[in-house]
Amino acid sequence: MKTQVGIIGSGPAGLLLSQLLHRRGIDSVVLERQSREYVLGRIRAGVIEQGAVALLREAGVHERLDREGQIHEGIGISFGGRRHRIDFKALTGSCVTVYGQTEITRDLFEARDAAGGVIVREAEDVTPHDIKTDAPWLTYRRGGDIHRVDCDFIAGCDGFHGVSRRTIPPAVLRTYEKVYPFGWLGVLSRTPPVTHEVTYNHHERGFALCSMRSKSLSRYYVQCSLDDDIAEWPDERFWDELRRRLPEDLARALVTGPSIEKSIAPLRSFVAEPMRHGRLFLAGDAAHIVPPTGAKGLNLAVSDVYYLSRAFAAWYGSGDEGPLDAYSDTCLRRVWKAERFSWWMTTLLHRFPENGLFGERIQLAELDYLVNSKAAMTALAENYVGLPY
Amino acid sequence: MKTQVGIIGSGPAGLLLSQLLHRRGIDSVVLERQSREYVLGRIRAGVIEQGAVALLREAGVHERLDREGQIHEGIGISFGGRRHRIDFKALTGSCVTVYGQTEITRDLFEARDAAGGVIVREAEDVTPHDIKTDAPWLTYRRGGDIHRVDCDFIAGCDGFHGVSRRTIPPAVLRTYEKVYPFGWLGVLSRTPPVTHEVTYNHHERGFALCSMRSKSLSRYYVQCSLDDDIAEWPDERFWDELRRRLPEDLARALVTGPSIEKSIAPLRSFVAEPMRHGRLFLAGDAAHIVPPTGAKGLNLAVSDVYYLSRAFAAWYGSGDEGPLDAYSDTCLRRVWKAERFSWWMTTLLHRFPENGLFGERIQLAELDYLVNSKAAMTALAENYVGLPY
Repeated sequence: MKTQVGIIGSGPAGLLLSQLLHRRGIDSVVLERQSREYVLGRIRAGVIEQGAVALLREAGVHERLDREGQIHEGIGISFGGRRHRIDFKALTGSCVTVYGQTEITRDLFEARDAAGGVIVREAEDVTPHDIKTDAPWLTYRRGGDIHRVDCDFIAGCDGFHGVSRRTIPPAVLRTYEKVYPFGWLGVLSRTPPVTHEVTYNHHERGFALCSMRSKSLSRYYVQCSLDDDIAEWPDERFWDELRRRLPEDLARALVTGPSIEKSIAPLRSFVAEPMRHGRLFLAGDAAHIVPPTGAKGLNLAVSDVYYLSRAFAAWYGSGDEGPLDAYSDTCLRRVWKAERFSWWMTTLLHRFPENGLFGERIQLAELDYLVNSKAAMTALAENYVGLPY
Repeated sequence: MKTQVGIIGSGPAGLLLSQLLHRRGIDSVVLERQSREYVLGRIRAGVIEQGAVALLREAGVHERLDREGQIHEGIGISFGGRRHRIDFKALTGSCVTVYGQTEITRDLFEARDAAGGVIVREAEDVTPHDIKTDAPWLTYRRGGDIHRVDCDFIAGCDGFHGVSRRTIPPAVLRTYEKVYPFGWLGVLSRTPPVTHEVTYNHHERGFALCSMRSKSLSRYYVQCSLDDDIAEWPDERFWDELRRRLPEDLARALVTGPSIEKSIAPLRSFVAEPMRHGRLFLAGDAAHIVPPTGAKGLNLAVSDVYYLSRAFAAWYGSGDEGPLDAYSDTCLRRVWKAERFSWWMTTLLHRFPENGLFGERIQLAELDYLVNSKAAMTALAENYVGLPY
């Protein structure tokens, strides 16, 4: 097979890139290790920045998003038993849209299918070759055969555990990492969300998040120990623990129901530099991971794809190599700011017994300052709705 | 002796309280362990919030401050070899005044002397008694004799190492502390300051601060190891190290000269709660310490005195105990915000090798965000010029 851009991974980054390139007349092939059902079975974030919504619109996958996505003009923050609101719309003029990542992926699959896009599923042992030359190529195994894809460029959109980042020689790659000493225990349930906006709860028992995918689908999280076993958390215990960490009015209003998904996820900050090596370009989780507190994971993948799609368009349109050469630096400046914001939100809201009593009081002082300072709320808001591309 | 308010300590907190009470017709006696020369020999901070200037004006000690104090409308922040400016005036409408703490203390001594205020110097073994009763009293030793001061209230303005805080039973007192893993090596020199505004420099070799007391008196600091010995830091080494940590234009412009004071100070965050026990009220360093990065030490002492002078005035004026009862909580809410700000400035600007490469990059990302976000600069500015009383 021959194509212009070989894309590894059919998550939202890979599919969106493929779709944006298609609309600019650039051909691509997407290689995916898993089945489509598996990809669509992954439960992921659902808070989308305005800039990301605009890019999905540019990609022509906005119809259902416009219809079913919920515009959120702010978030709630509770601590010391009281709820406060950060009004994004009033502070920045911008909002976020709540629409599950799974739905975006589904919409992108449909768009690619309708356009006759090539997405190879169950492609095993995907391997990039000759990435330092002008003629890189990919191989994969499927049905016992080895297949080859020749291309001009390779886009590594295959997530944290994918092959792309590992293809960059260790001598070239610098990595930065922070692992947080706790996890998030998440439950998805077919119940009406307790708040119509995402609410972050700082509590002495640990952080709790009230989130949602739709008006009838709730997503809740509680900070848990990394040693916790999901088997120790029957639904009843989860709801009890969540209720304890909410301010009284929310605890009373909480509607519980059977969990339809329950999992424990570790929290990690990770950045790999550079995001380009020869003709291989990393995008999304392949290059960086944020803890979910700031809702930035999907949004960062989308902003990488924004820069990458434009850089490819410049190269194919006029032979301009500038944007491709600048890709890594351009992305990383925004990535690090989102890493900073995600780290800060995580640090502000979770319980860190290792920081001692002084650390606890500093958190409360910062929360008290935050909800009483227009400047501090604006700084949170402008990061949450997304810094400009 | 008999007085209304017995004040321990003749630093700026004790003297300012005494002077403010005097102007409201309330009598006080100040007990000081040291000689006046010793008190006036201490080199301390010199950045004064607008609210603190207003209170000094209320105390009638503003003449020389108005004449010699320098209005600063912003600060500089450098990192990655580039200088940026935070424009307090444009962002908040407020400024700070640079005027040495020693000068304030001198002005207050003069004002107290002129008003015939009683300041007992070289008062040894000052001890509060019966602070849980309506008739507390103080004893001190001077010239071999034990003296007694009967009073209605005791104000503990005797700093971190003073007797006042230690008088509160350990079972009642909660303390919060953070010790930073480095110190500040400071040099005072009779040279023109390299910048007309205070400049904070983040550098891979460590933090450096360019500060001043007047147009001909400079105060510089470099982050140093707590194990460093002042003897290892001859002037030449200090100036070399400082120059290395400054952006090129400042390094070139730096005028050096013999140090007239040189010392290493540890950095500490500390808060004691409550700030009142019976009829003993703590103010300033007796109750809380901040690292000097945010220039908040003196300013916090002044805001404590603001609340305390008003609380005493209410009690003596109309018998209203409300403000005295609220004193501790009122102060602490502002204290914790200043502690938060000082901790944040310290954390943002110093080198913390123990936070690893990820921590370093987060600092740079935060600095990059800060100097490019009006909201973030405003948040810094509003804290630096002082949150409202």
